[in-house]
Amino acid sequence: MENGNGSMAAKKKWNYLQFHGKEEVNEEGSAAGISVRGVYSMMLSNINEEDEREVVRLCRADPTDFHCFKTTQEAPHAIAEAVHSFRFNSYAPSGGLFEARRAVANLVSSDFPYKLSPENVFLTVGCTEAINIITTVLARPGANILLPRPGYPQYQARAAFCRLEVRYFDLLPERGWEVDLDSLEALADDNTVAMVLINPSNPCGNVFTYHHLKKVAETAKKLGIFIISDEVYAHLTFGSKPYVAMGAFASIVPIITLGSLSKRWIVPGWRLGWIVTCDPHGILQDLGIVTNIKTYLQITSNPPTFVQAAIPQILEKTKDDFYTKNLNIMKEAAEILYDRCKDIPCLTCPHKPEGTMTTMIKIDFSKIEDIVDDVDFCVKLAKEESVVLLPGVTVGLKNWIRITYVVDPCALKEGLERIKSFGLRHANKLS
Amino acid sequence: MENGNGSMAAKKKWNYLQFHGKEEVNEEGSAAGISVRGVYSMMLSNINEEDEREVVRLCRADPTDFHCFKTTQEAPHAIAEAVHSFRFNSYAPSGGLFEARRAVANLVSSDFPYKLSPENVFLTVGCTEAINIITTVLARPGANILLPRPGYPQYQARAAFCRLEVRYFDLLPERGWEVDLDSLEALADDNTVAMVLINPSNPCGNVFTYHHLKKVAETAKKLGIFIISDEVYAHLTFGSKPYVAMGAFASIVPIITLGSLSKRWIVPGWRLGWIVTCDPHGILQDLGIVTNIKTYLQITSNPPTFVQAAIPQILEKTKDDFYTKNLNIMKEAAEILYDRCKDIPCLTCPHKPEGTMTTMIKIDFSKIEDIVDDVDFCVKLAKEESVVLLPGVTVGLKNWIRITYVVDPCALKEGLERIKSFGLRHANKLS
Repeated sequence: MENGNGSMAAKKKWNYLQFHGKEEVNEEGSAAGISVRGVYSMMLSNINEEDEREVVRLCRADPTDFHCFKTTQEAPHAIAEAVHSFRFNSYAPSGGLFEARRAVANLVSSDFPYKLSPENVFLTVGCTEAINIITTVLARPGANILLPRPGYPQYQARAAFCRLEVRYFDLLPERGWEVDLDSLEALADDNTVAMVLINPSNPCGNVFTYHHLKKVAETAKKLGIFIISDEVYAHLTFGSKPYVAMGAFASIVPIITLGSLSKRWIVPGWRLGWIVTCDPHGILQDLGIVTNIKTYLQITSNPPTFVQAAIPQILEKTKDDFYTKNLNIMKEAAEILYDRCKDIPCLTCPHKPEGTMTTMIKIDFSKIEDIVDDVDFCVKLAKEESVVLLPGVTVGLKNWIRITYVVDPCALKEGLERIKSFGLRHANKLS
Repeated sequence: MENGNGSMAAKKKWNYLQFHGKEEVNEEGSAAGISVRGVYSMMLSNINEEDEREVVRLCRADPTDFHCFKTTQEAPHAIAEAVHSFRFNSYAPSGGLFEARRAVANLVSSDFPYKLSPENVFLTVGCTEAINIITTVLARPGANILLPRPGYPQYQARAAFCRLEVRYFDLLPERGWEVDLDSLEALADDNTVAMVLINPSNPCGNVFTYHHLKKVAETAKKLGIFIISDEVYAHLTFGSKPYVAMGAFASIVPIITLGSLSKRWIVPGWRLGWIVTCDPHGILQDLGIVTNIKTYLQITSNPPTFVQAAIPQILEKTKDDFYTKNLNIMKEAAEILYDRCKDIPCLTCPHKPEGTMTTMIKIDFSKIEDIVDDVDFCVKLAKEESVVLLPGVTVGLKNWIRITYVVDPCALKEGLERIKSFGLRHANKLS
């Protein structure tokens, strides 16, 4: 009903407006605040352009800018061969090319007491899409999912989009970031459908033991929930604890393993991920979850066919040297980080990283002044020292920071040096 | 509350069950019924394996299996160059690489009275994901969207996932598949946010005139709704009507153009699409729609960085010969189809295809017996003649079929010959 009010009339012009006022834009906009990408862009926007020093980026787990972290030659060769064959320009089947699914099944189950088949594997556009698919498939009105804190914000962001309630269980720094199993049990109720565990652990950098993973599986079984095991950092371990695939415990509880080429092959921009149902008793199949994944994949884009076609060759031909060399650099970088942190009074790294590319560091605000929280710390650090870190609040731990140490060791040393100067400049004069 | 009932106790074991009983699985499962991919798989499963003849696939718009529809050499070269440079293994910015966005902006706006900038372009994992993103961004409780009938089922399938109500306006076969503007106006209300138009038109194969598109734009303006212009078949016209980009009318109403490399470059499996905001008055910007697209992209996978990096070279270096040659084969195929259809008594093609790779054909059930509807027609045809067509119900027109004629001309002739035999075998003895 037009009432002659100019502003009303203007509003009436586009129907969309009545569904989407200014406030709602802001509310949606805040979803960006919980993606690493969004925070990364925001932090970069704080860099002082007059600072002539190179920006040191310790924010994202993407070391591809550094010569020492180049992917193996086999990877681009496999892509070029696939694309030049002209055999992989057509649409792929929704779950992916059979040969690629078989290669991933063999990779994931190499140490399992049972065998995975190609039908257990669904190829996705990076692990991001694997998270999006599995969250969407599990979501139901009233259902909830248990996420680790700290964790990876994509789970939370996507759950919000599909109205899946999230509840957080703690990872305990004083116990090497192990799961607080008591808090996990206390959180779950009849509406809980699944829990997420990231192993090796982003953002903490710890690696869960066989014994602990088994206890997590037993707890999940008791609670009647599935485990989504995010193993995007599979095999990237360089401490005393080996990587153990959660799928090894799938006879206890169904495991949905997520993975990707991104980290181990150092090609995060290739967007090649997977969902694997580790489910020797066929429970996910019986409950219709496998059908629902397939259905959802039919209206979702999958990775380019020629990229899928390159997978068997990449997995088969990458030489052990490549993996070993990378793990050695990562181990060295983790040691540099852990040692030099001890010289920065306002920071504490509670646990030496044993895997992944990142770890969590606590800010001691009694040691500094003029800085109110982790975001303020990171913004001022970007402005004053051209060093980019991820505020801990992004991954669920306020007043911590997440640091990526998998960069060129020189850049890492330079970054830590600048963080030290920054800490000293802001040191609390009274302490 | 456990009551000792065995079946109840078994049900209780997995919490997921209480959100996802058998019925709901089926309901979700039926979503597969409205994807071309799902129906294609279903049809293929009907092929009689004892039939030694080659299967003739006239179901999907993917002619890559045929030698005559090979992509240009420039395309794989550009990919190989990008991947061998080792410069594009990192995450891309959410909207895409600047150079690639610029190349697409120039491509889309080449004939526009205004210029598009790279900021108007968002690269997506095929046009499928472009549809998914724009549908999600526009969805609000109570909102509805107007879709063409016949149309492309991805819109409907995705709208169902994000609870956006769909309403259908008719394309009129007796008017060369033009939009029924009266039915369009009658459908819209204050809750309508946008309409979709596919031009050149999948599944009908017609091309809308400048004059008709302008009338559609004026109608949309009057209704206060945006236009999503699906131009995945842009430039693929071979009749008397030229392709006119809807963005040419963006000064009348904001246009959101969707496109892709898939069809014109014959690489559907490459999954490289785009969303382009054609909006010289900045209305989509002011309303926060651009912000919402950006926000959503931050939690969505984008196309592989090296594939994005290849775009400028592919667009620049593809020779005119390549386009012309393909259009000539398509035109020849469209003529074969249209002419031979006249010899099949039970089929009528109301409008000779002028673009895209598909058209709609009506089944005259008074001419045949033992066949109850379009699905039955296609299933029996697959079983008896190893020819795969898409039942019209998949695209919204029951008792029609969608046929893809962009295949090798010999295969097309063979397929039509078999359809003719099928029609004669099932001819109504009384007619």
